[in-house]
Amino acid sequence: MDIDAIYPAPIRRAIRTLRSSQIRTVSHEAMGRDDVIPLWFGEPDQPTPKFICDAAAEALGAGRTFYTENRGIPPLRSVLSEYMTNLYSVPVEEDRITVTVAAMNAIMMVMQSIVEPGDNVIVVEPLWPNCRETVAVMDGEPRLIQLDEVDGRWQLDLDRLFDACDERTKAIFVNSPGNPTGWVMPQEQQQAMLEFCRKKRIWIIADEVYARLIYDRPYAPSFVEIAEPEDPVIAVNSFSKTWSMTGWRLGWLTAPPSLGPVFAELNEYNVAGATTFVQHAGVVAVRDGEDFVEKTRERYRIGRDLVYQRLSSMGRVRLSFPEAAFYAFFGVDGMTNSLEYCQQILRETNVGIAPGSAFGDAGEGHLRVCFASSPENLSEAMDRLEPFFS
Amino acid sequence: MDIDAIYPAPIRRAIRTLRSSQIRTVSHEAMGRDDVIPLWFGEPDQPTPKFICDAAAEALGAGRTFYTENRGIPPLRSVLSEYMTNLYSVPVEEDRITVTVAAMNAIMMVMQSIVEPGDNVIVVEPLWPNCRETVAVMDGEPRLIQLDEVDGRWQLDLDRLFDACDERTKAIFVNSPGNPTGWVMPQEQQQAMLEFCRKKRIWIIADEVYARLIYDRPYAPSFVEIAEPEDPVIAVNSFSKTWSMTGWRLGWLTAPPSLGPVFAELNEYNVAGATTFVQHAGVVAVRDGEDFVEKTRERYRIGRDLVYQRLSSMGRVRLSFPEAAFYAFFGVDGMTNSLEYCQQILRETNVGIAPGSAFGDAGEGHLRVCFASSPENLSEAMDRLEPFFS
Repeated sequence: MDIDAIYPAPIRRAIRTLRSSQIRTVSHEAMGRDDVIPLWFGEPDQPTPKFICDAAAEALGAGRTFYTENRGIPPLRSVLSEYMTNLYSVPVEEDRITVTVAAMNAIMMVMQSIVEPGDNVIVVEPLWPNCRETVAVMDGEPRLIQLDEVDGRWQLDLDRLFDACDERTKAIFVNSPGNPTGWVMPQEQQQAMLEFCRKKRIWIIADEVYARLIYDRPYAPSFVEIAEPEDPVIAVNSFSKTWSMTGWRLGWLTAPPSLGPVFAELNEYNVAGATTFVQHAGVVAVRDGEDFVEKTRERYRIGRDLVYQRLSSMGRVRLSFPEAAFYAFFGVDGMTNSLEYCQQILRETNVGIAPGSAFGDAGEGHLRVCFASSPENLSEAMDRLEPFFS
Repeated sequence: MDIDAIYPAPIRRAIRTLRSSQIRTVSHEAMGRDDVIPLWFGEPDQPTPKFICDAAAEALGAGRTFYTENRGIPPLRSVLSEYMTNLYSVPVEEDRITVTVAAMNAIMMVMQSIVEPGDNVIVVEPLWPNCRETVAVMDGEPRLIQLDEVDGRWQLDLDRLFDACDERTKAIFVNSPGNPTGWVMPQEQQQAMLEFCRKKRIWIIADEVYARLIYDRPYAPSFVEIAEPEDPVIAVNSFSKTWSMTGWRLGWLTAPPSLGPVFAELNEYNVAGATTFVQHAGVVAVRDGEDFVEKTRERYRIGRDLVYQRLSSMGRVRLSFPEAAFYAFFGVDGMTNSLEYCQQILRETNVGIAPGSAFGDAGEGHLRVCFASSPENLSEAMDRLEPFFS
């Protein structure tokens, strides 16, 4: 069959072959049902805290409904600059900050700015699949490097990664703390990668949306901490996970000042800018949100420990300790098709979990559970899952 | 000088040469000043009506802060389907509707889905420049066809447009009612273009964001009115102009059902989805907003008539009658550099207007004034401009 014949006029090849999210394949089966414990999405179980919602409502009342500057309203860029500077104890000037429609829009703009057809981007997997697909949209090749699971810890073989780079390598995409693994890239590896990329003139795209969700140290090592302003580092951040604002669609890029005009244009031509009163609420989230962030970390740590303890005691489960982010990503002995297994689990237990195959071939044989939920929910889910994994 | 040397690692050629908005070049000079009458942007002078703001605040209070379906929440797709069906008296089913982060995000996704490097898109100018730049981001060629100004009316020479199409033409981009001209494409021309595009398998990208802002008829002719569901027509709409929601970033696409999965994926990989509580407010805007739309049309009609009358009486002005949208786009005898002229006008009169050169080469020699403002503002602006144009 001519695939083109299903459309009234031609569609790009790269677009026809985009892979749809396997998490959504599972979750669509449960649409409209309210008896499911949903641990499949990377999303907190609680709505955005009231002080942030109030700030949005207040901005609406004050008529903050007009277009904004492409790179974001000055008070938001300013407070983000202070926030990064305080967090990492290095100056992060406002001219490096661009506000985005969350991390997804940021990643797409980065790929638009650097990937020519036939270029490749090194992608460290298992990984949230969306990064890989943005490379494909730009007709680039996502070149996959797998993390290794050694003695209950995820590890990156940096030499293998460097060896995979060639003259068409435009960027290395690293998500640390990582979704789905919770892997945290050590500072020494970040330093070695930065030196390699400076020399080779390769971009580092550092997806750091889980930067604050780490449980046994104050914060995760960041490329922003070690980079000079004009180093080839673009860090992607989001309000979604840190301030429980997934549905708000707000994030930011930290990039060399020389890229400022590039991201101003690309913001204009992709989305014009983030929603105005959402940006005003973002100022309040960053300025007044530290208590909330601390309480949230404590809550997720409890979830992490509960899920780790319960899963580790189940006979068929192989689970590395999640240092960060909010997922348990675990292997199940004897499971060969994680998508079908998740569908079966959903049908038989009403627990929604994500198939490892959603995170690249390296993820097959694994499952992902989000532990950003209440102990009651998580305990109930573990009770229901136990017969499957024992 | 090696342009690459200003960046720490390579940036795509197409991105380095994106043109920045000349409207913003002028407006940046007046940042932080509050004595300017701002008629440069395509934006109403009043904030969003209260009933829509209240709906957003209510959705926030109800915890509508989580991720949504990629193509938009079902109630919004449903109310948009009803709205289009009622407006055009033809069935427009929900499976054709995809909610977007306003028209800009919609246009970028459409270009991503159809433009391969070296393809061309026919663009009818003078035009809001952003469409042309989205083609450039995808390494396509925007192929420009100029409207003609004949006896005080803008007109499209359809034969010249058809002759410009070749085997690499993937789409024709038509913005009717048009920004900046107020041109309205007649239904017979739409029909002829549709038949041509069916035969040649070329997409029509119909930017219809000003569909409701027309002053001497109930609504503007629309491609949606004449297209079958599986015709090669993608219509772009926005909440920005009709419901005074520019800063909200909400819009929608109406496309063949076969493209539904394509836009679900592209939404996921560009922005994930529009802001959740903004979508809920969108439902209320469409459902309860008809009174507001009628009042707004009446208000802009008064602005249109005032500006038309005043400008027409000035000796150096050549002005076609704006049938629709909310702009006066007029030639000024003897003016050769509209950008510099706007900068001079701003300095000497504190009236902010947009240079015609912002809308393509066809726009040079012209200026654009937005008349979505109060009679007082517009009268004052005309008083100040009169010495310049007489």
